[in-house]
Amino acid sequence: MTIEASKSDSVSAKIRLGMVGGGQGAFIGAVHRMAARLDDHYDLVAGALSSTPDKSKASGVALGLDPDRCYGSFAEMAEKEAARSDGIEAVSIVTPNHVHFAAAKAFLERGIHVICDKPLTSNLDDARKLKEVADNSKALFILTHNYTGYPMVRHARELVQTGALGDLRLVQMEYPQDWLAEPVEQTGAKQAVWRTDPAQSGVGGSTGDIGTHAYNLGSFISGLELEELAADVHTFVEGRRLDDNAHVMMRFKAKGAEMPAKGLLWCSQVATGNENGLKVRIYGTKAGIEWTQADPNYLWFTKLGEPKQLITRGGAGAGSAASRVTRIPSGHPEGYLEAFATIYSEAAAAIQAARSGATVDPAVVYPTVDDGVKGVAFVTACIESSRKNGAWVKV
Amino acid sequence: MTIEASKSDSVSAKIRLGMVGGGQGAFIGAVHRMAARLDDHYDLVAGALSSTPDKSKASGVALGLDPDRCYGSFAEMAEKEAARSDGIEAVSIVTPNHVHFAAAKAFLERGIHVICDKPLTSNLDDARKLKEVADNSKALFILTHNYTGYPMVRHARELVQTGALGDLRLVQMEYPQDWLAEPVEQTGAKQAVWRTDPAQSGVGGSTGDIGTHAYNLGSFISGLELEELAADVHTFVEGRRLDDNAHVMMRFKAKGAEMPAKGLLWCSQVATGNENGLKVRIYGTKAGIEWTQADPNYLWFTKLGEPKQLITRGGAGAGSAASRVTRIPSGHPEGYLEAFATIYSEAAAAIQAARSGATVDPAVVYPTVDDGVKGVAFVTACIESSRKNGAWVKV
Amino acid sequence: MTIEASKSDSVSAKIRLGMVGGGQGAFIGAVHRMAARLDDHYDLVAGALSSTPDKSKASGVALGLDPDRCYGSFAEMAEKEAARSDGIEAVSIVTPNHVHFAAAKAFLERGIHVICDKPLTSNLDDARKLKEVADNSKALFILTHNYTGYPMVRHARELVQTGALGDLRLVQMEYPQDWLAEPVEQTGAKQAVWRTDPAQSGVGGSTGDIGTHAYNLGSFISGLELEELAADVHTFVEGRRLDDNAHVMMRFKAKGAEMPAKGLLWCSQVATGNENGLKVRIYGTKAGIEWTQADPNYLWFTKLGEPKQLITRGGAGAGSAASRVTRIPSGHPEGYLEAFATIYSEAAAAIQAARSGATVDPAVVYPTVDDGVKGVAFVTACIESSRKNGAWVKV
Amino acid sequence: MTIEASKSDSVSAKIRLGMVGGGQGAFIGAVHRMAARLDDHYDLVAGALSSTPDKSKASGVALGLDPDRCYGSFAEMAEKEAARSDGIEAVSIVTPNHVHFAAAKAFLERGIHVICDKPLTSNLDDARKLKEVADNSKALFILTHNYTGYPMVRHARELVQTGALGDLRLVQMEYPQDWLAEPVEQTGAKQAVWRTDPAQSGVGGSTGDIGTHAYNLGSFISGLELEELAADVHTFVEGRRLDDNAHVMMRFKAKGAEMPAKGLLWCSQVATGNENGLKVRIYGTKAGIEWTQADPNYLWFTKLGEPKQLITRGGAGAGSAASRVTRIPSGHPEGYLEAFATIYSEAAAAIQAARSGATVDPAVVYPTVDDGVKGVAFVTACIESSRKNGAWVKV
Repeated sequence: MTIEASKSDSVSAKIRLGMVGGGQGAFIGAVHRMAARLDDHYDLVAGALSSTPDKSKASGVALGLDPDRCYGSFAEMAEKEAARSDGIEAVSIVTPNHVHFAAAKAFLERGIHVICDKPLTSNLDDARKLKEVADNSKALFILTHNYTGYPMVRHARELVQTGALGDLRLVQMEYPQDWLAEPVEQTGAKQAVWRTDPAQSGVGGSTGDIGTHAYNLGSFISGLELEELAADVHTFVEGRRLDDNAHVMMRFKAKGAEMPAKGLLWCSQVATGNENGLKVRIYGTKAGIEWTQADPNYLWFTKLGEPKQLITRGGAGAGSAASRVTRIPSGHPEGYLEAFATIYSEAAAAIQAARSGATVDPAVVYPTVDDGVKGVAFVTACIESSRKNGAWVKV
Repeated sequence: MTIEASKSDSVSAKIRLGMVGGGQGAFIGAVHRMAARLDDHYDLVAGALSSTPDKSKASGVALGLDPDRCYGSFAEMAEKEAARSDGIEAVSIVTPNHVHFAAAKAFLERGIHVICDKPLTSNLDDARKLKEVADNSKALFILTHNYTGYPMVRHARELVQTGALGDLRLVQMEYPQDWLAEPVEQTGAKQAVWRTDPAQSGVGGSTGDIGTHAYNLGSFISGLELEELAADVHTFVEGRRLDDNAHVMMRFKAKGAEMPAKGLLWCSQVATGNENGLKVRIYGTKAGIEWTQADPNYLWFTKLGEPKQLITRGGAGAGSAASRVTRIPSGHPEGYLEAFATIYSEAAAAIQAARSGATVDPAVVYPTVDDGVKGVAFVTACIESSRKNGAWVKV
Repeated sequence: MTIEASKSDSVSAKIRLGMVGGGQGAFIGAVHRMAARLDDHYDLVAGALSSTPDKSKASGVALGLDPDRCYGSFAEMAEKEAARSDGIEAVSIVTPNHVHFAAAKAFLERGIHVICDKPLTSNLDDARKLKEVADNSKALFILTHNYTGYPMVRHARELVQTGALGDLRLVQMEYPQDWLAEPVEQTGAKQAVWRTDPAQSGVGGSTGDIGTHAYNLGSFISGLELEELAADVHTFVEGRRLDDNAHVMMRFKAKGAEMPAKGLLWCSQVATGNENGLKVRIYGTKAGIEWTQADPNYLWFTKLGEPKQLITRGGAGAGSAASRVTRIPSGHPEGYLEAFATIYSEAAAAIQAARSGATVDPAVVYPTVDDGVKGVAFVTACIESSRKNGAWVKV
Repeated sequence: MTIEASKSDSVSAKIRLGMVGGGQGAFIGAVHRMAARLDDHYDLVAGALSSTPDKSKASGVALGLDPDRCYGSFAEMAEKEAARSDGIEAVSIVTPNHVHFAAAKAFLERGIHVICDKPLTSNLDDARKLKEVADNSKALFILTHNYTGYPMVRHARELVQTGALGDLRLVQMEYPQDWLAEPVEQTGAKQAVWRTDPAQSGVGGSTGDIGTHAYNLGSFISGLELEELAADVHTFVEGRRLDDNAHVMMRFKAKGAEMPAKGLLWCSQVATGNENGLKVRIYGTKAGIEWTQADPNYLWFTKLGEPKQLITRGGAGAGSAASRVTRIPSGHPEGYLEAFATIYSEAAAAIQAARSGATVDPAVVYPTVDDGVKGVAFVTACIESSRKNGAWVKV
C-alpha cells in the first residue's frame, strides 16, 4: 500500500448539468447526483425531474435549483436550455426505459451531451434509431453501465488486453437477485412496478434490468463480440408480465485464429439470498480471473499452474488502468458510488475535451450508444430464442 | 458446539471386501480403501487390483492380502471367492468406466454386493442392462457418488424435504476444474489418459467425469426429476477426443401443482483457477441454499426477507440427517474422505441388514443403480443435444 | 433488498467551509473534500492549504477557490474569515497532528465549527487544553474517526445498546497494516515521513495513527470505558523513531452489576499482507459480533446456540441506526468515502441545527473532543506502560 | 491439480496398539481410533478403556477386542501386555490430563511407545518428571498436538525454515471457542465437567485445553522459543473453577543477530460465534502467512509488495513438506481426522524404524515430550503472570 495524493479534485470549469427524471421518490436519480458530485466535475443547474410539472418544480427546488430551470417536461427543458447562453452542456436521463429514446433524441439533436441510464431503450428499433441520432450528433452519448467503472473491472480488462489470460475460452456471467421473489409489484412498490411493466421497461424484465449489465460487463472485460445465443427465459412469479429469470448459452465470435469462446449467463430476480450477485469469470489458455460486484475491491487472478492471487484495488499487482480510476489507497474499500462516479468523470473528461476540441486521453473509457444497442439486441435475442424454445439466435 | 461421543466405531462383524482395480499407481482405489477403513466396517481380503496378473499380485501383497486371494481378473475373483465359505461379501469396483458393467455383472450374479465407482457404465445400453442385472440380484448395488456423503449436503436435502425452501424454482450446478487446461493426456499422465479416451470413459469427457457428479448432487438435494435438457458441449484443447466443457440448460418435471423448476449446469476441465469447484445452489419460493464442495462444512441458508445464515456441520441449525453422518464436533472440519467413508458406512448398514434379513434404517441413503442410469442418460442426452446444436432432448 | 429513494441530497443552505492543510501532494485533504461533497451539505470557500503561502494559493486556485480566500496560514484565515459577513462557518483541519491544537483553538475561539482529523493532538497536555477550549466555545468540535460512519458499525453499536449481546465480556480490536514494513520514511515518502516524526506525530507511531482508530471503534461500538491497560509497544524497523507495532491488554470499567469486560488491541504497520486490516470483535453473554473494515457491508452476528448470521448493509436484519446512514440498497457496496461522508453529514446536521438554535436529532452521532482526549490518553498510556515494561496503567 | 496415486496404504507389519481411556461416552478416544485406522499402520488389540473394569470390558468388546485384553486399569494392562510375546508395542493415552503422567510412565518404563493426548500433564512437576522418564526410556513418546499434522501447517513451517518470511517479527495466535459461554459443566456434560475440574485438568482451563494448542502451533511453525510472557487470565462464567479466557503478550528469544520477535495469544471458551477458531499469523521482514484451522486446506502467503497468494493443499506452490502428508489431490478437502491421522502415521514411521533400529526419515516430524513440557510451562507461566497482575514471567 502506498498512500498518495488523491486524484479526485476537479480543475477545469465545471460542466453545467441537467437531469431528466430522478424526482422525489426516485432511486437512481439520487445515485446519479452523488456520482456527479463526488469528483466535482459537474454543477446541477436544471431539471425535468418529474413528468408532473408541480412535482418537478418541488423536487428541483428541494435540490436547490433555480425554479425557472425546473421544467415540466424534457422537451421544454431541451428547448429552453438550448436557448440559454448559460444552458446545460450535458443532461442525465434517469427515467424508466421507455422515455430514454425520445429524451435522448431531444438533447442530442440540440448538441447537448447525454448521460443515459441503461438499457438504452425499451425496444431494438428505438435503439437503432437512437444510435443514428447519436452518430449524427456532435454531442456525446454516455451509457451508465456503471459496473465498468470499478477499478478491478478495469484491471481485469487490462489483463485480457495485455494477453495475460492467453486466448479466451469461457466467459461466465451471472447476476442473481431476490427482490422480486414475490409479486411485490402488486403492492405498488414503485421500483418494482415500472420494472415489471412492458410499457415502461420494454420486452425484457430481468434480462433488461440486470442481464444487460452482466452481458455488458462480460463484453467490456473480455472484449469479445457475441455471435449467437440460446436462451431459456422464464417468469416464475404468477401474474408477472415480464421475465424474472433467464438461462443463456452464448457463442462468441472467433478472434483471428483463436477458437471461438463460449459463455453462460444467468440472471434472476427470484434467487433468494442474493442481493446484487453480479459476478464475471473469464478463463483463457494461460490464466483465469474472477470478480464479484459485492466485493469489488478484489480480483482473483490465477495463472495456470501457479497459486491463486488476490489482487486488491490500489494494491500490488493492480495496473495502470485500475490506478487511473482509483481514489484512495488499498485496504480502504471503494464502492458502488465511486464506480458510478468514475463513469461521470470519464464522461467529464470527454466533455471537457469536446469543449475545446482537444483529443480525449485514450485511456478514457465509457459505455457508448453502441454498447446500448448491443444490450437491447441481447435482450431481444433472449426473448426470441426463448420463444423458439431455445433455438440459437444470431445477435 | 457440543462435544459428544463419536459414532464411528463399528460393532457388527466386519464385512469381507474385495476390490477390482486400484493397484499401484491408481488414485481412486486408495481413496476407497481409506474410506472403507475409517469407520471400521470392512476387512479387505481379496483383490483383482490390476488387469495384469503379476501387478495384481504385487499390489495385493503390498496391501497385506493373502497371495492366494490376489486374482488376475475380476472374473477369476468372482468365481473363486463365490466358491469360498469365507469369500467376499462385497466388492469395490474402482476401474475405468468401461470395465464397470462386466465386473459388476459378474459379482451381482453371484450374490456379491457391489460398491461401484461412477459413472455407472461407459454407455447407456450397458447402464440399462446393468440395472436389469441389479434389479434381478438379491445383492445390493451402491454407486459412489461420494459428494452425497457430506453432512451439509444431507442437511440441504433435509431442508428441501421438510419444505423449508418452499416450491423449488431453480437448481444451479457447476463443477469447474482446470487440470486438463492443457493436453496433459499427451504426456502420458495416467489419470488424464483414460479419462480422455472414449474406449475407456465412454461418450462423455467432462460430462461423464464431473458433470454427472454435479447433476447427481443437484438431484440428490432437490429431489427433482430431470425432464429435458439443452446442451452446448465442447472440446477446447486441440486433439482431445472427449469434451472438456459443457453448458447445459435444464427443465425439471413439475411436482404436483408446482410450476416446473429450471436449472443450469456447467462443468469444465479447462477453467483455470478451479480445482474441484463443485457448487450447488437451489432456490425456492421460501428460501435459498448454497453449498460448495471445497468448503464442505458450511451451508448458506437464507429465508426470504431474513439475514443469511451460515449453518455449520455439527453446529446450531444442522438437523438430524446431517448429525447421523457427522463424526466430530463443529469447527473441526471433516473432508472428502469422511464423505466418501459415509457412503461406505451407509453401504455397510444396508449390507449388514441384508445379512440377517433385517430392515434397513430408513435414514440410510446411498446412490443406487437407478442414479447410475440417470447419470449415463444425462451424459448421453448432453452429447445428443449438442450434436443437434443444442436442441432440447428428453432424458 | 428494497430499492427506495436515497436520502442523500441536501435541502438546507449549504455550510460555508474552509480547510487547513490538504494542499497539493496531501492525501487526507482530498478525502475530506470528497466526503464533504458527497451528500452536498458544504461549499468549500476558503483554505490555508499549505504552510507555504505560494503553495497554499496555488492549491486553492486549483480547487476553484477565490484567490483572496487562499491564506498563508491558519491564523490569517481564522482572523480574516471571522471578519467577513460571508465568512466560513466551519473548518476542516487536515494537517499533521502537531498543528491540530493551535489551529483548532484559533477557530473555536472565533466561534467557527471545527472538523478535525485524528488523533486530536500530538500530546495529552494539548488534548486537555483543547478540550477546555472546545467546552468553552459555542462552536462544535467534530473529530473524524471516520470508521464510526460505516452503517454496519452503527448497527453493531445498536445491537449492543439494545442488549442483543447481553453483558459484554470481550472487546478484541486489531488494525494491522504493512506499508511501513521497511524504512520507507528514509526514501522521503511524504506520508511516511511525518507519521514517523515525533515532532509532527507526537509520542505514538502506529499507536497514534491506527491504534487510536481501533480503540475508538471498539469504544464506539461497545460503549465501554477503558479502566487500565498493559502494553508492549515496539519499533521493529531499525532507525524508526516511533513505534510500528503494539500489543495491548485492556480492562474496561464494570457497568453496574456486570463483571468488567476485557480487551485486546493489536496495531501494526509491519504485518505483511495486511492493508487496512481493522477488525472489531465483541462478545457478550448472549451473542457475539464481528466486523472487518475491508468488507464493511457485512456484520457477523451470532446468538449463542444459533447459526451465524451475516447481516448486510441495507439488508434484512439491519436496524434503524444503520438505515439512517445508508445511501443505496443492499448488495451494492458502500465504502470508505461514504463512511467518511457520513461524519460530514452528521456534522452538518449538528451545525445546521446550531444555526437556528434547533435541537439536534438525538440519532445524530459523531466523535467529539472527549473521544479525542481519550485517544491521546490511550496512546500516552501505551507508551507509559511499555516504558514500565508492561505494567498496568490507569487511563 | 495433479491426480496421483495416494500414499496412504501401509506396507510394513502393523503396530499392535493399546488404548488407555476412550471408552463409551468418550469423545477423543474415537478420534484417536479413526486416526489410527485411516492410514492402516495400527491394529488395536488391547485396552484399559475405562477406570471402571466392567465398563472397560464392555467398551473393549464393543470394539472387537479380545475380552482377555480388556483391562481394568492401565497398570494392569502395562504389566500384562509387557509380559506377552504378542503384547502391544504402543499405547494411546486418551484420558483426562491428570492420568497422563502415571499412565505414560507405566508404559514407557516397560519399553512401550506412548502416544499421548495433550496437555502433557496436569502440572509442571509431573511434566518434568515425565520428560525424565521418557528421556531414559528407549520407547518413543509422541504428543498428539494434532494440528501440526495439517499439510498447510507443514507448508507454513517450511516457508519459515527456508527463509521465505525473512527474519520473523510477529507470531499472532488465537483460539476462540464458545462452547463454555454458559456454565454447562453444571448440567453434567461430561466433556465440560472434567475440563473445568482442576483435579482432572490441572491449573489451566482454556489455557491448558486450547491455549497450549495455539502456543504449540505458533512454535511449530515459527521455530521460535518463548522467552517470557505477560498474561491476563480470567474466568467469566460464575462458579467456574478454571480460566475460560486468556490474553497473553509474548516475547521470543532472538535468533542470532535478529531482533527478538513478539507475539500475542488469545484463547477463549466464551467467544460466541467461534467453534474452533484456531488461527496463526506470522510476519517476517520479507513475507507474512495466515492459516485458519476451520479452513485448513488454504494458506495465505504474501510477499512484501506482491499480491496475496492463496496456496492450496496439493495445489501449486505447496512444497515437499506438505506433499509428504497429503493424501488426496487439491480441491478435495482434507480435514481434522486426516491431520490427526498424520500424527499417527508419523509415529508409525518412527516406531517401525525403532523396531529394526533403522534411522527415521528426517522428514518425519511429531510433537515430543519436550513440546509437552513447554506446553505445561506455558500454562503455568500464564497463571503465575496473571497472579502477579500481568508481570512478565520467564518460561
